[in-house]
Amino acid sequence: MSRGSVTVIGLGPGDPRLLTVAASEALAQADDLIGYFPYVARVPERPGLVRHATDNRVEVDRARHALELAASGRRVAVVSGGDPGVFAMAAAVFEAVEQGELEWRDLDIVVEPGITAMLAAAARLGAPLGGDFCALSLSDNLKPWDVITARLEAVFRADFVVALYNPISSARPWQLGRALGLAAEFRAGTVPVIFARAVSRPDEAICVLTLDAAREATADMATIVIIGASGTRMIERASGQPFVYTPRSVPR
Amino acid sequence: MSRGSVTVIGLGPGDPRLLTVAASEALAQADDLIGYFPYVARVPERPGLVRHATDNRVEVDRARHALELAASGRRVAVVSGGDPGVFAMAAAVFEAVEQGELEWRDLDIVVEPGITAMLAAAARLGAPLGGDFCALSLSDNLKPWDVITARLEAVFRADFVVALYNPISSARPWQLGRALGLAAEFRAGTVPVIFARAVSRPDEAICVLTLDAAREATADMATIVIIGASGTRMIERASGQPFVYTPRSVPR
Repeated sequence: MSRGSVTVIGLGPGDPRLLTVAASEALAQADDLIGYFPYVARVPERPGLVRHATDNRVEVDRARHALELAASGRRVAVVSGGDPGVFAMAAAVFEAVEQGELEWRDLDIVVEPGITAMLAAAARLGAPLGGDFCALSLSDNLKPWDVITARLEAVFRADFVVALYNPISSARPWQLGRALGLAAEFRAGTVPVIFARAVSRPDEAICVLTLDAAREATADMATIVIIGASGTRMIERASGQPFVYTPRSVPR
Repeated sequence: MSRGSVTVIGLGPGDPRLLTVAASEALAQADDLIGYFPYVARVPERPGLVRHATDNRVEVDRARHALELAASGRRVAVVSGGDPGVFAMAAAVFEAVEQGELEWRDLDIVVEPGITAMLAAAARLGAPLGGDFCALSLSDNLKPWDVITARLEAVFRADFVVALYNPISSARPWQLGRALGLAAEFRAGTVPVIFARAVSRPDEAICVLTLDAAREATADMATIVIIGASGTRMIERASGQPFVYTPRSVPR
């Protein structure tokens, strides 16, 4: 029996041209494809590839399934949007490894990185992540809201650019408003805030607002929100959307 | 005269298989290639491609040169290692745009994202960035050291995973030791710290230490250091290097 493996693959933000060559090669070698159904749907069908599309919020079950298949000798690809290590499947796979069969630890488990949403969004606008920055999930499904607010306050106070993943969902309608309200306690109302939805996909929608205006704006699950630091700047242009960038220097 | 352009391209950590398709296509279309010489050296020569390799630390001169060439009708590729928006050339290009000729604002300027060092390093180890995390440059060439220490203290206190870019150089020998010493004021000495050097290149060297041991370790300019959060865990394995991951959940 051939030795099984699990490759946790980042599909990037959506456009297949934003996959790495290594990620494409790993997809081409898989026997089984496991993931949340919109990500599985991005991978073309081919003979010999068994597809296991699942609903969201069953990450550890999905990870255990992948490890079981690998232990039986299958080459399994677990797919995530963006980068699998950033609020995606890689952590769930290693949680399942640690909690699971001892033999799973010595399976061939590889992570293929991808372009995570904040990098794709930043690239569309200019260089908003040009200084020190944080990535924070606004979901309080897996961590208490008071931890989230303490972290937000720390990084707003210390003047990091802040990328918010999972800013909103139907079950979490008010968290983004609170986060932007907290930002306004530490930053000027003129600081740029980016709402980048479905970057590189056909329904891409990007807007740049001031923090004051952003507090009235809405987002959805497919959006990443990037809150500028005090130094983040907009460059207005005749030909369209402004550029947004954070200078490399912090004045004394 | 054809319309000139500037494409700021992320070459990823080194292995050409970690480039995106879009980045490769942009390199193939360039008339001029501009960048720090080790990055320029990664791009194969071809007829019609003019190479402008420069020394480090002249980022804004390099960016102005790119914009001048584009304004004269050339298609210019500016290359960075990793992702150009993360402590790399994109911010320098937009600084040059803002400070330069007004017409530069309406040039065709595109950023092609890449796999930044922390994502490449994290993928090699497991999922150390599985929770909230920060990316911080430890270089005090462009920001005061007291800003750096205030930021470090904020994110150590708030229990972020911390990725340190530019941890050390011959001109900055002591900053990394200070940063790890500060980490030890907030985190247990058993927390995993990753030193990932030249990920995906022939001279790749990765080690995982405890914070206590890391304080005695050395690094160089090609290294990224990732300091685990309180929840970051190592999974020991019979077959080699431990996995390192940060669980998605934060206990109440």
